[in-house]
Amino acid sequence: MKQEIPYKIYLDENEIPTQWYNVRADMKTKPAPLLNPGTGQPLTLEDLNPIFCEELNKQELDNDTPFFDIPEEIQKFYKMYRPAPLVRAYFLEKALGTPAKIYYKFEGNNTSGSHKLNSAIAQAYYAKKEGLKGVTTETGAGQWGTALSMACSYFDLDCKVFMVKCSYEQKPFRREVMRTYGANVTPSPSLTTNVGRKILSEHPDTTGSLGCAISEAVEVAVTNPGYRYVLGSVLNQVLLHQSIIGLETKAALDKYGIKADVVIGCAGGGSNLGGLIAPFMGEKLRGEADYQIIAVEPASCPSFTRGKYAYDFCDTGMICPLAKMYTLGSQFIPSANHAGGLRFHGMSPVLSQLYADGMFEARAVEQTAVFEAATQFARVEGILPAPESSHAIRVAIDEALKCKETGEEKTIVFGLTGTGYFDLVAYEKFNSGEMNDVIPSDETIKSYLDKLPKVPGQE
Amino acid sequence: MKQEIPYKIYLDENEIPTQWYNVRADMKTKPAPLLNPGTGQPLTLEDLNPIFCEELNKQELDNDTPFFDIPEEIQKFYKMYRPAPLVRAYFLEKALGTPAKIYYKFEGNNTSGSHKLNSAIAQAYYAKKEGLKGVTTETGAGQWGTALSMACSYFDLDCKVFMVKCSYEQKPFRREVMRTYGANVTPSPSLTTNVGRKILSEHPDTTGSLGCAISEAVEVAVTNPGYRYVLGSVLNQVLLHQSIIGLETKAALDKYGIKADVVIGCAGGGSNLGGLIAPFMGEKLRGEADYQIIAVEPASCPSFTRGKYAYDFCDTGMICPLAKMYTLGSQFIPSANHAGGLRFHGMSPVLSQLYADGMFEARAVEQTAVFEAATQFARVEGILPAPESSHAIRVAIDEALKCKETGEEKTIVFGLTGTGYFDLVAYEKFNSGEMNDVIPSDETIKSYLDKLPKVPGQE
Repeated sequence: MKQEIPYKIYLDENEIPTQWYNVRADMKTKPAPLLNPGTGQPLTLEDLNPIFCEELNKQELDNDTPFFDIPEEIQKFYKMYRPAPLVRAYFLEKALGTPAKIYYKFEGNNTSGSHKLNSAIAQAYYAKKEGLKGVTTETGAGQWGTALSMACSYFDLDCKVFMVKCSYEQKPFRREVMRTYGANVTPSPSLTTNVGRKILSEHPDTTGSLGCAISEAVEVAVTNPGYRYVLGSVLNQVLLHQSIIGLETKAALDKYGIKADVVIGCAGGGSNLGGLIAPFMGEKLRGEADYQIIAVEPASCPSFTRGKYAYDFCDTGMICPLAKMYTLGSQFIPSANHAGGLRFHGMSPVLSQLYADGMFEARAVEQTAVFEAATQFARVEGILPAPESSHAIRVAIDEALKCKETGEEKTIVFGLTGTGYFDLVAYEKFNSGEMNDVIPSDETIKSYLDKLPKVPGQE
Repeated sequence: MKQEIPYKIYLDENEIPTQWYNVRADMKTKPAPLLNPGTGQPLTLEDLNPIFCEELNKQELDNDTPFFDIPEEIQKFYKMYRPAPLVRAYFLEKALGTPAKIYYKFEGNNTSGSHKLNSAIAQAYYAKKEGLKGVTTETGAGQWGTALSMACSYFDLDCKVFMVKCSYEQKPFRREVMRTYGANVTPSPSLTTNVGRKILSEHPDTTGSLGCAISEAVEVAVTNPGYRYVLGSVLNQVLLHQSIIGLETKAALDKYGIKADVVIGCAGGGSNLGGLIAPFMGEKLRGEADYQIIAVEPASCPSFTRGKYAYDFCDTGMICPLAKMYTLGSQFIPSANHAGGLRFHGMSPVLSQLYADGMFEARAVEQTAVFEAATQFARVEGILPAPESSHAIRVAIDEALKCKETGEEKTIVFGLTGTGYFDLVAYEKFNSGEMNDVIPSDETIKSYLDKLPKVPGQE
């Protein structure tokens, strides 16, 4: 007899994965190494250790170990908010009238409001283990900063957050959550760092960018003893930690004998997408199964679909390592009218290599269409989604509607990375009909791509 | 071998209760009937039907039927966000160093952010079934309004919400969530109703109150064909629907063979407290088990601890029925510096009778002590609690610390009714050291109690 699929599949606590999966181990072409911007040489542990935590650097550089044990203390913390449910979107399916079966992995049932906590707690753990006083970071929409604040509070670490100025202003309450968890939050660019002062003198009216906030956070980390810099996306280590999303999703599907046909994730720097798709991509790389995997990005910041696969700086201030990635240029700043995160100019090197290898497709979607999907989803599934997550919802709905036309009963799985409780300014704009779509022109993108750094072997 | 208690106990979906429990059936002294304010006579179905939905009025007046089947459509909706987890507060226990075992029933994992959705969906269901166009209501902190908006959106009902003005101003984002779900939100008192205009002409600077918003919502319901009024607390029917909280809690405890010693709930109008304690109180009333049950209310609105058990109006405008309840007087308005809900001047008649019968105790706690508990809880348990819920946290912590002194290994269960994501203005005040406690003087309370309505048989 066929087992009935519940509305929400919760793994038992003892079924939560105890290892992270490193998709790099199964990649034939490994992601290109980070380069030292001064020498153009691949970064070594020695180069990285002054900036990041040692143990994390080992994870960063390890392209071969397929599984990493999750330390017990992190496993314990995970039980505070995991397992995250895999939800069968029965209500949405009915509203769409689709024969498709839609599932979403919901990572928003924690106070940080997103999946970011999965890596934040890992990074805080290793920082504490190394005996550090604190960490610095940047945050865009605020989800990563909130997550890191929670993680640092748990381990009694100081937490200094540089928050992209337009988010800081749009989301004053995010700041207050971070403060409740004891973090110190500064709008970026700020006058507290050299790089911030430089950017402000050149662009006094800038609304900030992730790249710029990264520069400030790195500067503070390297100039203050006992501090290191941590990052919520892009890095290989982050994708490793975030694999918990995909592993739990896969375990929940397997528990009910469900095979996904399509896996959809939103992509900014790649933390959610990389984590969600990890085990599916692993099977695909090993030739064990096939999946249609779709990355969804904002049309206002389209690194996969309109960027260039090239070495570039990870930050606006050009003090960080160079990463080979799909990039719009480190000076690219998405229009301030773009709400929420997914504002980073580049993309995870792991995902970039996989995309270059044709292992998944990418779509860019416009903001108003995203909020239409968000509202439709909220009304039937009862969860007010984050703008970021709503990119994935948009394409999941599009795919389900295609199934309605073709009659295909595809199983669609998407990542619902978080909730939109701190994004009501954006919802208000949408509800008032004041939201619009600003898409960078070809000329604009070209102007930034023309300024990519010169790296040996790269035209 | 003793079974290990997980961090979070989730019932299976097929273990979610399919009947609501009506504690009135087990009460020897039934709650006093609502009275018609004009005649002083107990209200009949005929009196109630022009204001409220018929099916709900039957539930309201039924003091005898112990169980009501939950309609299938509501059961289905419950699966959107239920079962709610019963969480073992391992992290909090460790932080307190208490031998007590602390559990909390977390009702905040839904977009309305609280338990209010449990009754909202029931009331919307019966309104739809009756063929109504829409419903009107009031909301204080905004949780009830949000919940009702979600429920009305699901059943395609029009939803008109009068929101207490100070909450409307402190929580603009709540309004936007309601709007996303299609509701119409008006700050109260407003110029759109007779009663609102009257109140504003007498008290032009009022920050509003629940009682006042109720008056406006009722006026709109009775003057617009196809509309009825619905209420998120106080009423017997609401406690009936909210019994799902207690029934799930009890089922989860029973599943692991756990016996609660102390059950703690916050109390404003009584919706959460009445729901949470229902099955425990039932056992206590039937003499099957004993529990220490504690109601926690704000010191700034202390109806149980400083009010009078008497007939009073449920609303400021004095157009609603009279209820016998612990009340501070229908003209009482808590200080605007009191954050969050629990602002109602009265209390559920069911709970009032049980309290008068000595079936549970009540404590009033001050706001700053509540936010201290909230912050402590957030930092270790990872959930930013609603100010309302934090009243229960305060007393749960106090009780756990008593256990630390005595060495008792009591099992403490409390209701964590919701999240504080829309209460960051209050958190900001607390974090900045600007929060204070304003407790009404004896003279103030006496002045309101002196104005209680004259009802036959009541001094």
